[in-house]
Amino acid sequence: MKAVVNVFLKNGVLDSQGKAVHHALSSHGFGSVHDVRVGKQIIIEMGENNAEEAKEKVAQMCEDLLANTVIEDYTIEMQA
Amino acid sequence: MKAVVNVFLKNGVLDSQGKAVHHALSSHGFGSVHDVRVGKQIIIEMGENNAEEAKEKVAQMCEDLLANTVIEDYTIEMQA
Repeated sequence: MKAVVNVFLKNGVLDSQGKAVHHALSSHGFGSVHDVRVGKQIIIEMGENNAEEAKEKVAQMCEDLLANTVIEDYTIEMQA
Repeated sequence: MKAVVNVFLKNGVLDSQGKAVHHALSSHGFGSVHDVRVGKQIIIEMGENNAEEAKEKVAQMCEDLLANTVIEDYTIEMQA
């Protein structure tokens, strides 16, 4: 069972990495870019068979370790 | 128009960040985890209306700036 976790800064938190990429793209002639946000994607392979239980475990991992929930939001998508 | 770009290390390239997360999860009692890979997700808002042209531009951005194609692969998904 595979879990795809996306971790992004919450709206309103300054995404300096995204701003830097936006600036770099603009300087390289990609002027049509309006906004860039940069986050992490974490792919977890796990031995669980029950998707419901697996998703709960991954949510716990996010709360404990993978995301800083003060400033970051996360989404979890389970794949067979 | 929104482009979602995922950048991951190629297979065979040591993903030390993924290994570190795997180790940390195991030490925190998540023993069912077999493997972890960590990549970047970059969300680009752009003013293009033509999805085909926009995707080509984003591919160019990846080749030029967003991915190190020697060690990284990327995927592009366009959203309306």
